[in-house]
Amino acid sequence: MSQVRIAIDAMGGDHGPETVLAGAEIALGRHPDAAFILYGDETRIAEVLKAHPKLAAAARIVHTDVVVGMEDKPSIALRRGRYKSSMWRAIDAVKHREADAAVSAGNTGALMAMANFNLRTMPGISRPAIAALWPTLRGESVVLDVGASIGATAKSLVEMALMGSAMARVLFDLERPTVGLLNIGVEEIKGVEEVREAGRILRDENLPVNYHGFVEGNDIGAGTVDVVVTEGFAGNIALKTAEGTAKQLAGYLRAAMGRTLRSKLGYLLARDAFQVLREKMDPGRANGGVFLGLNGLVIKSHGGADAQGFASAVDLAYDLVRHELLARIENNLVNRLPPAAPGEASEPAEAEGQS
Amino acid sequence: MSQVRIAIDAMGGDHGPETVLAGAEIALGRHPDAAFILYGDETRIAEVLKAHPKLAAAARIVHTDVVVGMEDKPSIALRRGRYKSSMWRAIDAVKHREADAAVSAGNTGALMAMANFNLRTMPGISRPAIAALWPTLRGESVVLDVGASIGATAKSLVEMALMGSAMARVLFDLERPTVGLLNIGVEEIKGVEEVREAGRILRDENLPVNYHGFVEGNDIGAGTVDVVVTEGFAGNIALKTAEGTAKQLAGYLRAAMGRTLRSKLGYLLARDAFQVLREKMDPGRANGGVFLGLNGLVIKSHGGADAQGFASAVDLAYDLVRHELLARIENNLVNRLPPAAPGEASEPAEAEGQS
Repeated sequence: MSQVRIAIDAMGGDHGPETVLAGAEIALGRHPDAAFILYGDETRIAEVLKAHPKLAAAARIVHTDVVVGMEDKPSIALRRGRYKSSMWRAIDAVKHREADAAVSAGNTGALMAMANFNLRTMPGISRPAIAALWPTLRGESVVLDVGASIGATAKSLVEMALMGSAMARVLFDLERPTVGLLNIGVEEIKGVEEVREAGRILRDENLPVNYHGFVEGNDIGAGTVDVVVTEGFAGNIALKTAEGTAKQLAGYLRAAMGRTLRSKLGYLLARDAFQVLREKMDPGRANGGVFLGLNGLVIKSHGGADAQGFASAVDLAYDLVRHELLARIENNLVNRLPPAAPGEASEPAEAEGQS
Repeated sequence: MSQVRIAIDAMGGDHGPETVLAGAEIALGRHPDAAFILYGDETRIAEVLKAHPKLAAAARIVHTDVVVGMEDKPSIALRRGRYKSSMWRAIDAVKHREADAAVSAGNTGALMAMANFNLRTMPGISRPAIAALWPTLRGESVVLDVGASIGATAKSLVEMALMGSAMARVLFDLERPTVGLLNIGVEEIKGVEEVREAGRILRDENLPVNYHGFVEGNDIGAGTVDVVVTEGFAGNIALKTAEGTAKQLAGYLRAAMGRTLRSKLGYLLARDAFQVLREKMDPGRANGGVFLGLNGLVIKSHGGADAQGFASAVDLAYDLVRHELLARIENNLVNRLPPAAPGEASEPAEAEGQS
């Protein structure tokens, strides 16, 4: 593969094309063999590109009229934005092999609805998942699903274990990343049968997964396993709770350090250490949710990300393309899992034809 | 009420009677009108009490032979420990009005199974919940359910809102504590119908709940609302994830501060501020899960709590008794909610008679 071609939804996110394009240029600086297709308002993009000549040289603009709003419901976004929004077109470029991955900082629900509708799930995958990179005491872990769907069957948890393993293998350069199923400590409580059944399958069947066992919420930050698998409601709550806790502790830290003259002096002396700490605590550092299980790679950047945050989402897209994540997932799946029965495959929300 | 009588499972927890009794004595120092019944091995308790003469003067010992293990499954604990374990007897004292509350650092699943079996759910409550006190940027919030049961109906979420409100009113001295339903940001995703229906009931029906709306995981640490309501799987994952994140950031802090001589000097100057921070970050500070929805008050202390941690669980029991939490919950419930249909009430695991 000579170049990595990335389709950018230039209109997505809270801060608009200025931040998105500044982020793309930062990522281009790190990956000079990247090429970009920028979807959005041509006049506005061209104006912003004047400040980013390097990006301009590595990109082409495709004009779109429609912007998916950050608050649009997925069904509305799909109805209004299909075929013609910057978000749809970026995904569509992946579908038609004009790009190797799409990156958007737009609304998660709309992006997932469009990606699922247009790209469809891979053979053997019953539903897509969103995987997050989670900073831990031991480095980073892959956590999925953090919000693509609610509830999970044993089968979809096993699929996530296979997909998450492939992603950890690529990103962390591990031969046999460890995988844990998120659970709660209480035994014999009704409602975790699916989790227990998934555990049985991962333990007993000969799958390409290095299964560790159940883990609890505190194991995520500890980095007990390389891949944490859970259904999307609990996964999303966990992710947001960890972000909230990091903010909360940063607030305590500021307040505690500003308390006395002595601690202020201490702060000045320890400033560099605090800088390191702030970077570790920054939830934007490992920015980017990866949509897994679709016939194409789509990366969701945090809507509020700054240029550095968007750049790290582009970096992630670049790395996953370079290391052929999708081929590795297919390899994990197609050869090891029986194909989903026709009725089990996830169906798009509407049955109309596609472009 | 002249005294607050607290039944203590002296054998529960990772550290045994030494820690439990030391904790009870600390709490007694703060609440001289507390009286204790200590359930467990009489010889061992009497030995430990020699070091705690003040507690000995305010306590009587009731000998029990059986100890529920920290790893025992609830069904095993119930079979082996019913009638005769220290855990059962502490709960049974509450049932027979010999004590106003029971406190145990034992195994959560066993404690909930025994409490549910022996005390039964209150009229109008379909299932019990565990409420946690969660330190936030604005003070503290009540979060429930953190692990009593998995999944929730709209009805059980509404019941939790009523119970959590009563608890926040008592503990935070608020007239109208705000209540949020934990949800994820994506609209129109299948599986949150129960949460949305609960939101509709809390908004539209004239319940004694100051309903704020949906909140997300990051709102917990921010202290957006006084009471956060969720089903027990996500609630438990959130609680453990926050604990894990706090530990993780404490680890980063230690590493960052030890990095250079300059930052070490800074650390020495800022030591008092760090002490304040450590206390705020300490997950044991607000120790104690409250079992709500039962005909009697049971407090679960963290199994690994030290004496200070166990003392704060006893403090919590004391405060909830003093402020008549159960009567306030009953007042919220009985007059406002239609009684549960017979089939909906939670039934104990076994149908045998009780002592």
